Amino acid sequence: MSRIDVGVLGATGMVGQQFVRLLAGHPWFRLTWLAASERSAGKAYRDAAAWRLADVLPDEAAQLIVEEPVPGKGPRLIFSGLDAAVAGEVEGAFAASGHLVVSNARNFRMEPTVPLLVPEVNADHLALVPYQRQEKAWPGAIVTNPNCSTIFLAMALAPLRVFGLESAVVTTLQAISGAGYPGVASLDIAGNVVPFIGGEEEKIESETKKILGALQDRQVVPHALAVSAHTTRVPVVDGHIEMVSVRCSARPSLEDVRRAFAAFRGRPQEHGLPSAPEQPLVYLEEANRPQPRLDVERDRGMVVCLGRLRPCSVLDFKFVALGHNTVRGAAGAAILNAELMRTEGLLAD
Amino acid sequence: MSRIDVGVLGATGMVGQQFVRLLAGHPWFRLTWLAASERSAGKAYRDAAAWRLADVLPDEAAQLIVEEPVPGKGPRLIFSGLDAAVAGEVEGAFAASGHLVVSNARNFRMEPTVPLLVPEVNADHLALVPYQRQEKAWPGAIVTNPNCSTIFLAMALAPLRVFGLESAVVTTLQAISGAGYPGVASLDIAGNVVPFIGGEEEKIESETKKILGALQDRQVVPHALAVSAHTTRVPVVDGHIEMVSVRCSARPSLEDVRRAFAAFRGRPQEHGLPSAPEQPLVYLEEANRPQPRLDVERDRGMVVCLGRLRPCSVLDFKFVALGHNTVRGAAGAAILNAELMRTEGLLAD
Amino acid sequence: MSRIDVGVLGATGMVGQQFVRLLAGHPWFRLTWLAASERSAGKAYRDAAAWRLADVLPDEAAQLIVEEPVPGKGPRLIFSGLDAAVAGEVEGAFAASGHLVVSNARNFRMEPTVPLLVPEVNADHLALVPYQRQEKAWPGAIVTNPNCSTIFLAMALAPLRVFGLESAVVTTLQAISGAGYPGVASLDIAGNVVPFIGGEEEKIESETKKILGALQDRQVVPHALAVSAHTTRVPVVDGHIEMVSVRCSARPSLEDVRRAFAAFRGRPQEHGLPSAPEQPLVYLEEANRPQPRLDVERDRGMVVCLGRLRPCSVLDFKFVALGHNTVRGAAGAAILNAELMRTEGLLAD
Amino acid sequence: MSRIDVGVLGATGMVGQQFVRLLAGHPWFRLTWLAASERSAGKAYRDAAAWRLADVLPDEAAQLIVEEPVPGKGPRLIFSGLDAAVAGEVEGAFAASGHLVVSNARNFRMEPTVPLLVPEVNADHLALVPYQRQEKAWPGAIVTNPNCSTIFLAMALAPLRVFGLESAVVTTLQAISGAGYPGVASLDIAGNVVPFIGGEEEKIESETKKILGALQDRQVVPHALAVSAHTTRVPVVDGHIEMVSVRCSARPSLEDVRRAFAAFRGRPQEHGLPSAPEQPLVYLEEANRPQPRLDVERDRGMVVCLGRLRPCSVLDFKFVALGHNTVRGAAGAAILNAELMRTEGLLAD
Repeated sequence: MSRIDVGVLGATGMVGQQFVRLLAGHPWFRLTWLAASERSAGKAYRDAAAWRLADVLPDEAAQLIVEEPVPGKGPRLIFSGLDAAVAGEVEGAFAASGHLVVSNARNFRMEPTVPLLVPEVNADHLALVPYQRQEKAWPGAIVTNPNCSTIFLAMALAPLRVFGLESAVVTTLQAISGAGYPGVASLDIAGNVVPFIGGEEEKIESETKKILGALQDRQVVPHALAVSAHTTRVPVVDGHIEMVSVRCSARPSLEDVRRAFAAFRGRPQEHGLPSAPEQPLVYLEEANRPQPRLDVERDRGMVVCLGRLRPCSVLDFKFVALGHNTVRGAAGAAILNAELMRTEGLLAD
Repeated sequence: MSRIDVGVLGATGMVGQQFVRLLAGHPWFRLTWLAASERSAGKAYRDAAAWRLADVLPDEAAQLIVEEPVPGKGPRLIFSGLDAAVAGEVEGAFAASGHLVVSNARNFRMEPTVPLLVPEVNADHLALVPYQRQEKAWPGAIVTNPNCSTIFLAMALAPLRVFGLESAVVTTLQAISGAGYPGVASLDIAGNVVPFIGGEEEKIESETKKILGALQDRQVVPHALAVSAHTTRVPVVDGHIEMVSVRCSARPSLEDVRRAFAAFRGRPQEHGLPSAPEQPLVYLEEANRPQPRLDVERDRGMVVCLGRLRPCSVLDFKFVALGHNTVRGAAGAAILNAELMRTEGLLAD
Repeated sequence: MSRIDVGVLGATGMVGQQFVRLLAGHPWFRLTWLAASERSAGKAYRDAAAWRLADVLPDEAAQLIVEEPVPGKGPRLIFSGLDAAVAGEVEGAFAASGHLVVSNARNFRMEPTVPLLVPEVNADHLALVPYQRQEKAWPGAIVTNPNCSTIFLAMALAPLRVFGLESAVVTTLQAISGAGYPGVASLDIAGNVVPFIGGEEEKIESETKKILGALQDRQVVPHALAVSAHTTRVPVVDGHIEMVSVRCSARPSLEDVRRAFAAFRGRPQEHGLPSAPEQPLVYLEEANRPQPRLDVERDRGMVVCLGRLRPCSVLDFKFVALGHNTVRGAAGAAILNAELMRTEGLLAD
Repeated sequence: MSRIDVGVLGATGMVGQQFVRLLAGHPWFRLTWLAASERSAGKAYRDAAAWRLADVLPDEAAQLIVEEPVPGKGPRLIFSGLDAAVAGEVEGAFAASGHLVVSNARNFRMEPTVPLLVPEVNADHLALVPYQRQEKAWPGAIVTNPNCSTIFLAMALAPLRVFGLESAVVTTLQAISGAGYPGVASLDIAGNVVPFIGGEEEKIESETKKILGALQDRQVVPHALAVSAHTTRVPVVDGHIEMVSVRCSARPSLEDVRRAFAAFRGRPQEHGLPSAPEQPLVYLEEANRPQPRLDVERDRGMVVCLGRLRPCSVLDFKFVALGHNTVRGAAGAAILNAELMRTEGLLAD
């Protein structure tokens, strides 16, 4: 099978750099096109991007000439690491020009006909795409991945739907890489905690319900559970920790919950998608895990690590979750989305 | 009025050093006696203690000769910064020898006749002291302050008792100074979060109920509210952040809660105790406050800063709290306890 | 004596905020005028400045209405915390309009008739002011303080001039607050060292020679010593560490050097200037000091702490220095300059 | 070729864990024996070692039963990650029992007949081994690697010997992992710099001269250059930065130095040793590199990254160096030593 050409919008930013890193040597996709703002256009990527990842900039991408984000240019399949300030307009224009835009931006996530996809959780939501094309009259389409913190929460809650999820209270301790570059000023976060991230709590509370919702009659009926989020920024480079309390109508035992976590698999695992972890949820037995520094890179940053499952004296039970915010929470999530789209036939024509 | 002689048990540790710092120039108390382990005994305090605070070691204390913790030696009023591993035995022996031990250790906190005191919240619990003396046959007595995180939570919840407190879910982001010295290894916490602190969640859940409880018939009836705590360690030097969700049976409006926070005062404010802040709860209006680095030293570290009061979609409302863990959460708490004991006539004989 | 009205240019930035903090309650100066960019003008300072210091914003300053930096407006004595990008033009215009500009910016530092002042070191350089007025035809004048790292180095080297300073190699470990706000991105410095600060090494190497130079015939003859600087940024909030190796022609013993450090005093100490530390150089005996977190606030951040004096196997001897970069290295330095100017009669008219 | 059985002394410590990680899947060596203190003996390694590396504990090692360090037990080739407190006695006893001990400890480094080996720099020093056996009457032998900071400095200076090295002044900014576990207390280093590391400056100053020295008449004549070291601890997890000024009698141009860095190769590269980097010194062109967070893992942590070569106004030129302290500076160094020993015939019998 030949590799499919792909491009990246917003290629010089933090999420864009993760796309470039993760697409290097991808078995299904070949990165051939990089777009960024006018300021970068015309330069080799190695000169346009101030590369800030510890892995060395892949040679092939380094030599690509960055282009301006002109709809219709570039391959049909486009990953978007655009900032929300411009993603709404640019991604819409690309979809209208026939591109399949696999986006990490928040702009289209809550649109009724746009899949807000976590492949292990709601692969069936891809069925929205035809309705989206019809509604928008787009030859292309937009498929989104959720906010990083939301992905980890939704993955941890998904196997608990069978127990009748009623409510969840979550406090996040989020890494600085989640805010992009330059992002958080060092004076704001050095030796400090900032107990506020603009718009984040709202995203977690609404997106989780859409992801866990059921597809009925050409639309997603949001899940009924109530989610309350407290979000904080902490001086960690990569990896969001979430402290989660949950109530379920079926009152599962801790053992039931453990088994549900362990058994959780989805379409990516069935199809053996290249970026899919063998097991999406990895439960760590040690009393003080998961921890960002020790666990965030597990299985290439594509799993959610869980731990400390114990009773909650207000809701039913509580646990800790950890995910890699720029991999499973952003670029890696979008790539897994595109891999699923391929096995579901959405990339063919 | 002449100053009362006081001593410190565990004087060389982190909490002990805070006692020494805070007692320097205290208007009511004069620090005349310092005790520590055998290894330190016989040395001048300046040589025995590896001073680790940014404020310079006070001259008077520097010259005191450290003694061994022998019950009956030293002044009647003794502050204890002892580690829990030894506090049980040593504090008991001092109380049995006639000392009034004002302790920061956890060992006696949950004993039925030992006041677990937050002067603004439950000053009336000091009435347990006579029962304690009777029960233990101690000429002295022990009065304790709660665990640091618990103090901040209890102070924030105390004014909400009028609304019928039902439940609270709290996630703490705790500073490294809370673990003493050497305490947390830098390799464990640098750029990291550890989502576990041994015994801490249990303390918060049980101590809060005792503090907020009512004194009835010679004992404290714990408050009925359910508390669920998630505790984490973060790379911050001083200042514990708490993300709190609360449910009250009276369903107060956010405005009601704000007014209750603002109006909250207690015995320390009525009596103008030297260490009492003018206003125990300080609400910060900025969207991203309180923060440890900017707010932990407010009013000499003796207030609890609050912020971000907003609705909670699972319980009723939620907010952020911040307190200085080694001041209001430890040594400063004990000193305020002793100040209250003086105005309540417990130091007279 | 009545207080002298003063103003601050660049009042909302990091150095500007330090000016505001340090001028609150100053015995000689009364802060009556704050200027900042167009965007802030017309607002109360409390609304215009995103206050980022742990000390609470002083009430008096909070209420001042921020003005635009129009030369001729505001008091005669003006402190400048302006960024170098605009300081050249604005400060010049203010001096041309009759203001005495006491500046922290680098723009005029190396001009032959502009004093580059460290009051303990080269108070006599103030004699340049009349030549400056003549040369520039300014009714006002500009007096500058050096770069932060340079101040600490110059203060440590000044008492060694008697030994025939020949050369110094210095490596700095500089705090993030030195880069202003937003300044250093957290992703660049979290758990990291950046071994480069643009222009900093050049400033240290040239400014030190001017400061230590001799006033001869209406100009400063730079000191002959060779200075080589290595500069790095480290994840510390406040306080620059400097590791210094020195060679002197007289080959002083370590004891000679220690005595010279201890005996060092200058005009600020003779006159008892309000911001002057009693002793400009404080030598710490502990083997592992000075340290930013423990020592940077000594004597209100106005001293340079020294330690670890020992032989150097390449030059003669080596030691550690520490200074508070935004206090003694910026706003506090400028205020001390203005205090000296007053006692030298430069503020009279 | 069959793999050679190897063991590790001090297997549960930080360096021991790096040995275990780096030996997993090694093409020449097979890890079959792990020894640690009495407390760990008898347990499976997975239970005995509190694994603190981000890479998952290799399965094979996890199942090995930890033994006590009894000389004569275990394979002939033994890596030692022992602490200096016990390494002197234990390593000597193992060598006396016929083991080849490849040690990271400091105890034997400066013994005249013990090679202090950096394979790219002084592979010929292995010729000391027969003299060592003769002198000590050991059937085995001890080969050591230098102190971590010393290795990086020696590697950077080695290609400059041709220019007549005269002196070097170096300031190190060292990571916390260099101090082992628990090592540095977080309260000592969080947001701080400690300008002192016990014994470190002496090691750098003496070991560098031995490594760069010439083998003459059965012993190493130390190189004549003078080295002056300033050492500091900074809040970085992995990676020591060194700021180096150098003087050479031949006064090479910067271009000469650059070429010497680029051309530097040694025996490991000639023989293609499994752990050898292709190019031992990697010069980075960016103005602000190398940096620990971005560059420490290059080429599996086995290279020294260099940058910022520029003139020094006191010595001749100066530059920045970076190395991975627990890989190239410890366990990786020892493994490379053992690989060289094999190609030099020292492992045959």
